[in-house]
Amino acid sequence: MNKDIFMDLLQAKEYKAVRSILNVMNAVDIASLLSEMEDKELFLAFRLIPKEKAADVFAEMDSTMQAYLVEMFTEKELREILDDLYMDDTVDMLEEFPANLVTRILENVSKEKRDKINVILNYPEDSAGSIMTTEYVDLRRNTTVAAAMNHIKRIGIHKETIYTCYILENRKLVGIVSAKDLMTMDDNMTMDELMETEIISVHTHTDKEEVARLFSKYALLALPVLDDDERMVGIVTVDDAMDVMVDEATEDITKMAAMNPSEKPYFDTSVWQHAKNRIPWLLFLMLSATITGSIITRYQDAFSALPLLVSFIPMLMDTGGNCGSQSSTLIIRGIALDEVHFSDIFRVMFKEFRISIIVGAFLALANIIRIYLVYDHNLLMSMSVGLSLLATIVIAKLIGCILPLLAKQVHLDPAIMASPLITTLVDTCSIIIYFNIATRLLL
Amino acid sequence: MNKDIFMDLLQAKEYKAVRSILNVMNAVDIASLLSEMEDKELFLAFRLIPKEKAADVFAEMDSTMQAYLVEMFTEKELREILDDLYMDDTVDMLEEFPANLVTRILENVSKEKRDKINVILNYPEDSAGSIMTTEYVDLRRNTTVAAAMNHIKRIGIHKETIYTCYILENRKLVGIVSAKDLMTMDDNMTMDELMETEIISVHTHTDKEEVARLFSKYALLALPVLDDDERMVGIVTVDDAMDVMVDEATEDITKMAAMNPSEKPYFDTSVWQHAKNRIPWLLFLMLSATITGSIITRYQDAFSALPLLVSFIPMLMDTGGNCGSQSSTLIIRGIALDEVHFSDIFRVMFKEFRISIIVGAFLALANIIRIYLVYDHNLLMSMSVGLSLLATIVIAKLIGCILPLLAKQVHLDPAIMASPLITTLVDTCSIIIYFNIATRLLL
Repeated sequence: MNKDIFMDLLQAKEYKAVRSILNVMNAVDIASLLSEMEDKELFLAFRLIPKEKAADVFAEMDSTMQAYLVEMFTEKELREILDDLYMDDTVDMLEEFPANLVTRILENVSKEKRDKINVILNYPEDSAGSIMTTEYVDLRRNTTVAAAMNHIKRIGIHKETIYTCYILENRKLVGIVSAKDLMTMDDNMTMDELMETEIISVHTHTDKEEVARLFSKYALLALPVLDDDERMVGIVTVDDAMDVMVDEATEDITKMAAMNPSEKPYFDTSVWQHAKNRIPWLLFLMLSATITGSIITRYQDAFSALPLLVSFIPMLMDTGGNCGSQSSTLIIRGIALDEVHFSDIFRVMFKEFRISIIVGAFLALANIIRIYLVYDHNLLMSMSVGLSLLATIVIAKLIGCILPLLAKQVHLDPAIMASPLITTLVDTCSIIIYFNIATRLLL
Repeated sequence: MNKDIFMDLLQAKEYKAVRSILNVMNAVDIASLLSEMEDKELFLAFRLIPKEKAADVFAEMDSTMQAYLVEMFTEKELREILDDLYMDDTVDMLEEFPANLVTRILENVSKEKRDKINVILNYPEDSAGSIMTTEYVDLRRNTTVAAAMNHIKRIGIHKETIYTCYILENRKLVGIVSAKDLMTMDDNMTMDELMETEIISVHTHTDKEEVARLFSKYALLALPVLDDDERMVGIVTVDDAMDVMVDEATEDITKMAAMNPSEKPYFDTSVWQHAKNRIPWLLFLMLSATITGSIITRYQDAFSALPLLVSFIPMLMDTGGNCGSQSSTLIIRGIALDEVHFSDIFRVMFKEFRISIIVGAFLALANIIRIYLVYDHNLLMSMSVGLSLLATIVIAKLIGCILPLLAKQVHLDPAIMASPLITTLVDTCSIIIYFNIATRLLL
């Protein structure tokens, strides 16, 4: 939908046309269209959205827009939206809202819903509990397919996902039945006969990254969440799991480039916030790099006597850093995808060692030939650089693969052991190796 | 399930126990259990899997195991598996198989299926067509809810997803109806009354990354795929979209660390393959770094006269590289998530410029104070380093944000414009800036 056309219609008070446009658009696109409007127009346009779609659009908006609308709503409008809003979207909204709006909202929901909201708000930030919703279809063992279909017809419209039904006994989960089974199996079969009993589930405190991994591993549409007494309290749906996946990848990538992750997209983060996210790591890495610098001064005599030595420093440092970050990146990603574990550390080291010998030999040879040809057949010089490079690459790859695994083991995020930190460490090693070999062979 | 117990039962020929274990396990876990077995046991165990689950397990196996089984199967067994295998899984398997096995399989499917397979095999590798499946539920405009439910009951069990039904007219897609609608709406309503007509769809040649983005944006369970004549030819399901998402993030992360991405997990890639994936970029970057080295030799007189100058090179190079990769990383990720576009280039540059001034001023000041205190109150020396650092950071952040956007614009993968390449470029800049400032202020 073209924004300008829409705005023209709105300003010309062509509400009937506006309404029919909103009628065919989907909720995500309406929310994105509204996000470009001024507050006043936003409120006007929101009121023109068909009633059955309003809550869906509301759920897709960012919290600033939601807050503005909540302030403008009459009590009746607010209650209507809250009635249609799923539990997980309600909680997401409350987590971002100022206290006065939270109070206003809690006053306008039923006691039962208020209690549920308060429980969910108390789950840790990155847990399954914090992203679950409490709407799901629960059935009994002796329910028949026909009865289940009737039940869903009556209440299903209010449930976020009806495609997996949960069979409960004393609030404990004993089996699951898919809507596909209900739609294709004989009317008289009971849940007891149909249900799968090997159930994949998580607890309220399970990390949401683990939740996303289960969705991807088992191709799930929904995942039941149990409390500490193994009673079923909610479900996580696949759309939320996908959001977690994207967010976690972004967070890892950001950390791997030595930044504190931002929760908002690039343009929505202020210049100051960007600077604040970037300075701490830069400062730490800068101070670490001065160590390398002060080590260089120790070899002052060497490069005063042979200034050419200095010119190979960037190549050695960069190549070492690149080799180290190649290894650390693969291991960090392997850990994130649950493919590499701490117990594999010796297997990883042995593999990286062999790779580093191949890579190192190849690059060292290329350097030896280049330097021998360029610098008047100076064999000793070319050998010094070549040997230093080989040693640097072996050490870089070992550091690169060990550190993320160690970080994981001591419950640090492996992603911080990426390129920048590895580069700084490898720099120091490569300088020491280089000058030791060079002074011995050349001076 | 514990592998050892399972193996003991299998070797003791306790087939009844093995069968009941396999009966309750889910397909993903069975496939992972089988992956740890020897070929002979694998074949034996596979034959004990309950018939209705065998194709699901087969689809979850890697292509080496699949190839072994296909070789061992009788014609009858092969045909049974192929009948139950979804089209997308069949095509995935064929893409990895040697020619003789492909022939054997194509001989054992119906002509109709063979034609479909050949069409899908011809779609470009990373396209929607290559990951779609051809099984879906199609209905007519005048079908009623009751008739639709009956239709699904009859044929639905063979369709990969029945939760979105597609209303076709002359093979063109005119609307979609969700299973939720079918289950909750009145039996006598027709599809025409129920269907949504604002349909999100892709074409066979749409990039699969774009497909994954649509799933995440619109929280879809399935997405219809149309051919060039706008006729519906298949659907992509959410589980495949999730796989694409994970793979694409891994691919980006790998490329950002200057490696050619591997299609297999870390341990499944051979040492030689790892080395081959890493050497080309290292070689290219190494040769680029020698440029920085040869620039340094131009300033030989400067650091022969003042050797201390050399000791600040690592700090300047590392900080410049880190600043540049922070910016490039955020922009690369922003492009991947469709949040940043080439048209934003001036907005991005202005933002990064302001951030770099804040970050640069802060880090430069920290350096000026440190050097002033450490090196006998040498104000000129500390100012040279500080100024060089500020200039390096501004240039690094601008290079870091511009290059990924330019890459995108000329249809290169922005991910290659990450840390390693940026670092090498920024190194050269920082060395030139540094020695120019230092020679002017200090010599």
